[in-house]
Amino acid sequence: MAISNIRYGEGVTKEIGMDLQNLDARRVCLMTDKNLSQLPPVNAVLNSLAKYGINFQMYDNVRVEPTDQSFLDAIKFAKKGEFDAYVAVGGGSVIDTCKAANLYASSPTSDFLDYVNAPIGKGKPVTVSLKPLIAVPTTSGTGSETTGVAIFDFKELKVKTGIASRAIKPTLGIIDPLHTLSMPERIVANSGFDVLCHALESYTALPYTMRSPCPSNPISRPAYQGSNPISDVWALHALRIVAKYLKRAVRNPEDREARANMHLASAFAGIGFGNAGVHLCHGMSYPISGLVKTYKPKDYNVDHSLVPHGLSVVLTSPAVFAFTAQIHPERHLEAAEILGADIRTARIKDAGFILADTLRKFLFDLNVDDGLAAIGYSKADIPALVKGTLPQERVTKLSPRPQTEEDLSALFEASMKLY
Amino acid sequence: MAISNIRYGEGVTKEIGMDLQNLDARRVCLMTDKNLSQLPPVNAVLNSLAKYGINFQMYDNVRVEPTDQSFLDAIKFAKKGEFDAYVAVGGGSVIDTCKAANLYASSPTSDFLDYVNAPIGKGKPVTVSLKPLIAVPTTSGTGSETTGVAIFDFKELKVKTGIASRAIKPTLGIIDPLHTLSMPERIVANSGFDVLCHALESYTALPYTMRSPCPSNPISRPAYQGSNPISDVWALHALRIVAKYLKRAVRNPEDREARANMHLASAFAGIGFGNAGVHLCHGMSYPISGLVKTYKPKDYNVDHSLVPHGLSVVLTSPAVFAFTAQIHPERHLEAAEILGADIRTARIKDAGFILADTLRKFLFDLNVDDGLAAIGYSKADIPALVKGTLPQERVTKLSPRPQTEEDLSALFEASMKLY
Repeated sequence: MAISNIRYGEGVTKEIGMDLQNLDARRVCLMTDKNLSQLPPVNAVLNSLAKYGINFQMYDNVRVEPTDQSFLDAIKFAKKGEFDAYVAVGGGSVIDTCKAANLYASSPTSDFLDYVNAPIGKGKPVTVSLKPLIAVPTTSGTGSETTGVAIFDFKELKVKTGIASRAIKPTLGIIDPLHTLSMPERIVANSGFDVLCHALESYTALPYTMRSPCPSNPISRPAYQGSNPISDVWALHALRIVAKYLKRAVRNPEDREARANMHLASAFAGIGFGNAGVHLCHGMSYPISGLVKTYKPKDYNVDHSLVPHGLSVVLTSPAVFAFTAQIHPERHLEAAEILGADIRTARIKDAGFILADTLRKFLFDLNVDDGLAAIGYSKADIPALVKGTLPQERVTKLSPRPQTEEDLSALFEASMKLY
Repeated sequence: MAISNIRYGEGVTKEIGMDLQNLDARRVCLMTDKNLSQLPPVNAVLNSLAKYGINFQMYDNVRVEPTDQSFLDAIKFAKKGEFDAYVAVGGGSVIDTCKAANLYASSPTSDFLDYVNAPIGKGKPVTVSLKPLIAVPTTSGTGSETTGVAIFDFKELKVKTGIASRAIKPTLGIIDPLHTLSMPERIVANSGFDVLCHALESYTALPYTMRSPCPSNPISRPAYQGSNPISDVWALHALRIVAKYLKRAVRNPEDREARANMHLASAFAGIGFGNAGVHLCHGMSYPISGLVKTYKPKDYNVDHSLVPHGLSVVLTSPAVFAFTAQIHPERHLEAAEILGADIRTARIKDAGFILADTLRKFLFDLNVDDGLAAIGYSKADIPALVKGTLPQERVTKLSPRPQTEEDLSALFEASMKLY
């Protein structure tokens, strides 16, 4: 169980120049994306770097929902810059890209596939030392500031995969709720759904004592180790915050209390799933994002089709938890209660349906598209969606209930329409 | 907010040889005390070191409730050994001694007072790099495996003080519940009271936003930063475990579930108070331990008078929380409810009395000595007890309610008799 350092508070971003001074950083790489480079979070960082005289180079070419190509571009920048510290300002796309850049710049002779998760890559353990990375999240979803995971689209294979190692975890996460005040409504909603699924999946993941293989040498154990007594604390705590604040945060950008709490919940859920792992919603989300056709979500200022990560994750959640509830139904029922279900007369064998119904109502209240059909998929796409899920063993193996290809087909089919 | 790594599970101690191999450790210092050196936890470590061919030297001269002299003896050993890793097997006394040995061996030109908390010492920030330290707790109380604090008795001044810096936090805590099965009843109880007070004090500590001074440079901020949204999660979670399992753990050494949960709770509360801090129970406990007369507790195999740390902390808890409840009464009431009070008809202004009564009943049920009088103190000792509390500013300043010398006198007087 490894947990990153985080600092929380309105305005704490302005301390980042001091942090870099304390790290004796002389050549800093500041990563962000083109949208953010003009916005207040990046400005806050730039002001602090200037105030403390920190020498830096900015890379603002991060792609929202990054690919192997966009990772490689950032890696090239990092290798050339010979940086001694990194600062990532953005959502999960930026922070993940920065982790990859730091990793490969610190291990310059490695092939890109060396550290990519098996079976797609070689999944080699990281033994090199990385440079310090300070992450400043500007969305409230990925929790990437607390995890050792970096996700990207492997274009050639049309599948999302990633790099997972404790070694790439940021040195410090700066959780500054001021950065969330300018988030548009759909970005708050979708990133909040990512938090919701991180919490639900890590709480219902296969227990750490049942995971296999369980390498005898601790250094070889995966970052995602199954649900455990510590990740449970974070998952439940994050879920309670989502239940209390997500709707408020989506509906009212002025609700500072709600937005601040969701920003913390994102980090809390990150600490939970970063150790326990996620399972089917995430495993199935990667092809949902990777095979996107023409869907362009509201509020996202990008020039390509895109299923936002949080949306791709949450659309299958009713079907997934109805499926997994036969293992640990009491945890599914507990989650439903936290999300507002009245379970006083509930039967434990109905736990999955109750959680599924609760989730459907929650998504309906938040104006979520009516299932995979509403974002452009039809029954004919199911074989490709299943095929894209199969290589996601790293997470699907953490499902408490094993699943066949037929099970996956049925889950995608049940997710075509929600309401 | 900084959190150590922990590994949890029955038997995980046997992996320590691999951990040291992974750290490339070639000269390991194994610290413990004379009692433990013959017991299963140390044997488990020795077996693993032998299996993985780890070269080590053992220091088993740690003093239970260490002093400046006993720290200096361990430091001398560490300096001479030129170790590249440390393993501490024991309760808080052993782990704290090992932290100090690692610190001063890594900073050989420092004077002992350099790092001791001000105003007793100079409280200098630690800027040197320490060697890895793996802590294997054998009691379920201090949470020292997760904190950056090392406490000792400053003999000359007859007062307990310590060293507090994130830099001395262990690299890894190995939470192996097998080590708790041989703990005698009173050691389970007293170490459990330490967990109880860590949780209650950190949950009710001055909020982090109100602490002063608040140095602008993050590196200068104290390890104890006041209650905050993260430490709150740990404090409440630990408190719930104490409420559910402490009595069972004390009464039945065969209750593996209870003992395992208390072992985890100790680490959880450690993560909480290690960031938030403790306040009056701990501040007042140091002279209660330091001025001990002839008290020799049951179940402790030592040749000197001793007030066990957990006992010295908990005896003032009813008086302390009755005093502090006027600030954040709702938190005091919530704590009382977790500990079993029926608060349905409670008035918020009675929160302090309700928590105090709940604690008295809890302590009575666990056969705790009836107040400071029962361990040898009388009214005549109060001025000395107050005098010994005054230098404990590092913690007493975190009390949500400021206190005068008269307040401290009254708190000691109210703690003379509990039932």
